[in-house]
Amino acid sequence: MIPARLIYKNGSVRFLDQRLLPDKIKYLTARDAAGVRKAIKDMVLRGAPLIGCSAAYGMLLALKGLKTGSKPALKKELAKRAAFLKSARPTAVPLFSMTDRMLKKAFETIDASDSRTAGGLLSGLKSALTKEAASVVAEDVNSTKKMAGHGLKLLKKGSTVMTHCNTGALATMGIGTALAVVTEGWKKGKIKYAYAGETRPYLQGARLTIWELKRNGVPSALLTDNMAAHIMATEKIDAVLIGADRIAANGDTANKIGSYGLAIMAGYHGIPFYVVAPVPTIDLSISSGKEIKIEERSKEEVIKVKGSYIAPRGIDVRHPGFDVTPAGLITAIITENGVINPVNGGNILRNIKAAKHK
Amino acid sequence: MIPARLIYKNGSVRFLDQRLLPDKIKYLTARDAAGVRKAIKDMVLRGAPLIGCSAAYGMLLALKGLKTGSKPALKKELAKRAAFLKSARPTAVPLFSMTDRMLKKAFETIDASDSRTAGGLLSGLKSALTKEAASVVAEDVNSTKKMAGHGLKLLKKGSTVMTHCNTGALATMGIGTALAVVTEGWKKGKIKYAYAGETRPYLQGARLTIWELKRNGVPSALLTDNMAAHIMATEKIDAVLIGADRIAANGDTANKIGSYGLAIMAGYHGIPFYVVAPVPTIDLSISSGKEIKIEERSKEEVIKVKGSYIAPRGIDVRHPGFDVTPAGLITAIITENGVINPVNGGNILRNIKAAKHK
Repeated sequence: MIPARLIYKNGSVRFLDQRLLPDKIKYLTARDAAGVRKAIKDMVLRGAPLIGCSAAYGMLLALKGLKTGSKPALKKELAKRAAFLKSARPTAVPLFSMTDRMLKKAFETIDASDSRTAGGLLSGLKSALTKEAASVVAEDVNSTKKMAGHGLKLLKKGSTVMTHCNTGALATMGIGTALAVVTEGWKKGKIKYAYAGETRPYLQGARLTIWELKRNGVPSALLTDNMAAHIMATEKIDAVLIGADRIAANGDTANKIGSYGLAIMAGYHGIPFYVVAPVPTIDLSISSGKEIKIEERSKEEVIKVKGSYIAPRGIDVRHPGFDVTPAGLITAIITENGVINPVNGGNILRNIKAAKHK
Repeated sequence: MIPARLIYKNGSVRFLDQRLLPDKIKYLTARDAAGVRKAIKDMVLRGAPLIGCSAAYGMLLALKGLKTGSKPALKKELAKRAAFLKSARPTAVPLFSMTDRMLKKAFETIDASDSRTAGGLLSGLKSALTKEAASVVAEDVNSTKKMAGHGLKLLKKGSTVMTHCNTGALATMGIGTALAVVTEGWKKGKIKYAYAGETRPYLQGARLTIWELKRNGVPSALLTDNMAAHIMATEKIDAVLIGADRIAANGDTANKIGSYGLAIMAGYHGIPFYVVAPVPTIDLSISSGKEIKIEERSKEEVIKVKGSYIAPRGIDVRHPGFDVTPAGLITAIITENGVINPVNGGNILRNIKAAKHK
């Protein structure tokens, strides 16, 4: 129903070019790690889980053109390519965690290899990383189903919900994070109506989310982001659901710009505010949201819409791509392991451990 | 510096077509009341005070083509034309108050006329309404200067402020309402930086406000509306200033969609939230914001930007043009008569009476 976002075939990765949606369904091919990096950087694909899966395939493609020297030289070169891949964007943590996971698998494979030929070592590496990348994708697909199941339990029958940015199938390799709760909720009678904020400046809500909602048959309407408070005050909104790009150890959550404002407005109106994101989005290396680097993107992306200028040239423009919602404004975080509520460091750790014991 | 918004000449009104700003400076001519109504409805001009001034000239133009019969017949026809003019848009109160003021002046002139010829009566009417419309404009110009003066007193030296929609010269016949506090504040060292929200869907902030700020030399940057909370949390914002389309007797304020959300976010961050609007914006006939009719405008205005679709066709779209900020979220209302703080019915009445005693 929703076109494939990432297709690995014949040593290349084809990405659905999400910048052209919903007007065109077109694919862009990345033939090496640099190509994957550029696709992530240029937002051909987006969404933290999909960025993670893409990074995994980026590392597989990073094996291309490797000159096998000593094992240490091979590891050094792979680490260099991993670092370059990770420099694509600064905020979404799966880019880092999945690249590192692949690099770790590569190192383990190199260390364990007793192949006497360079070709044998590379062939073993390729085989191991192909399997690992497939696992990353399989886990993502599986996580999205589980998150939807956990999220549904929090909703009353016949709920009207609001969401921001795109957290649907297009943001993952599975059915989505927050938006999967909405689409699955509609199928099961839990959701009766959904509002999608257009999500300026990149318009992921207007271009992607409302398109996914429509394709899934969910009764829904598009809002400009600044209509949210009015709708909350004049209609009954039962929940706000968003995804996440990075969650700090204390639950502070970086997500698409506008999320923090929505959380404040939801809090003011007494509406539950849920973050739906898989465990790899949690970054235990940072204690709070203050340590999350917020990407400042280009001015052109704000003042140009579909090739036309909407503001005078030469003005100053701010373009933080993300903001940080403090844990205190988040009613619950929903991962593939269940519901974190209240949101605090201890409950987050318990949720992550639940994964490891499965 | 800012082009004339309304020029009355040779029995016609020329309006600066604000839909084309900042790309083109072009005027559109209205030759009768229906033309003025269409210009207001189509948002050739906007901004509550400017709508009020335009309505005054609309009533002057309503004299065209009148067949003079009996005085009662003349009054009936004028009342009909006034009602039609007022149906242009439902929210901004100066459209109603200024149309009614002109109609009242017309009735008084008709009642007082002892002219024996139809021509004499019409000529007297035209003369009286020309003078009254000029008074409406002169009062507006004068009000904007006074509001800027009162508003400046509330700001600390070197303030960084945030604003929404366009409340500058373009929204009035004078120097503006909220934005005049910013531009005058810059000249006097009170303001050091201003953020303007782009104000989707009509982009008054991106097209008009940032253009006015630049023309006035005010250091400033454009934000998408959903960046406001992030900027409030990560920088020092000293005040948020907005205009108003209608203020109820208790201080609840209808203004451009997005204002209410900004007020909630300002409150959350402890930032003073000011409404700057002239007394004719206050509607004592309604006790609270619940009675304010919110205009729902077209879906096309949301999903089409500069002629290009930003979302799939055939989706549902909400487009409330305004929202209501409860008095409790407003730190002060600034009128030409001074500062209303705290905002409540008694203080509003006292502020209005201050005008009458001048």
